[in-house]
Amino acid sequence: MSADEIAVLEANDAFYDAFHRRDVAAMDALWATDVPVTCVHPGWDPIRGRDEVMASWQRVLLGDAPDVRASRASAHVAGDAAWVVCREQIPNGPPLAATNLFVRRDGAWKMCHHHAGLVARPDDERLPAALA
Amino acid sequence: MSADEIAVLEANDAFYDAFHRRDVAAMDALWATDVPVTCVHPGWDPIRGRDEVMASWQRVLLGDAPDVRASRASAHVAGDAAWVVCREQIPNGPPLAATNLFVRRDGAWKMCHHHAGLVARPDDERLPAALA
Repeated sequence: MSADEIAVLEANDAFYDAFHRRDVAAMDALWATDVPVTCVHPGWDPIRGRDEVMASWQRVLLGDAPDVRASRASAHVAGDAAWVVCREQIPNGPPLAATNLFVRRDGAWKMCHHHAGLVARPDDERLPAALA
Repeated sequence: MSADEIAVLEANDAFYDAFHRRDVAAMDALWATDVPVTCVHPGWDPIRGRDEVMASWQRVLLGDAPDVRASRASAHVAGDAAWVVCREQIPNGPPLAATNLFVRRDGAWKMCHHHAGLVARPDDERLPAALA
């Protein structure tokens, strides 16, 4: 694993750590300030714009959202952008798949997009068989 | 909207056009060749590596996957990386949210990650209320 990939995975860990600690200030500090950030929370429509995204995190972190644990994370670097694909698990809940996107700023990887959504299961009757 | 954002949305349209036409060669040409591409199809575990991702598209495009239409797309550019957030709709199916990630190569935006997943609905009994 490259030094860049390790650094990206550390940024990804910091994101889930801020989530776990319900730390709104740490979450804010993780996100880029100079790119148009976006976020797709599970079950929410996409949120666009830093103020809106941060307001959504405040609602999630200070609300009664369940604890989230990430696993199976892999980092993928393309120049000054990088993304992580991982699995999210909530207690007694269905598994989620997440994409976390970062940009490199002054040597640090800053988050610019988060997308978490249900991993449909093969027995999910709402999906056509070809997609399930 | 900037010229970059327009170009990214055009690349996003080309992706859904290749999907609609079941065009495996066009789909292959859309994806970057020099970065570690990844893909999260709805209901599949994340796929990592170009050969594996392209094999998955061959299976999807030549199988009986339903037609997918994209809407509400927005493009977000950060240097030589960009991403699109949009809604996907399949006939008589649940709505999906998608993240499509691109890198700029020789002036063209090449796909390097696709993530589509169910948008959980507020009445989804599988999600804790705080996430739904």
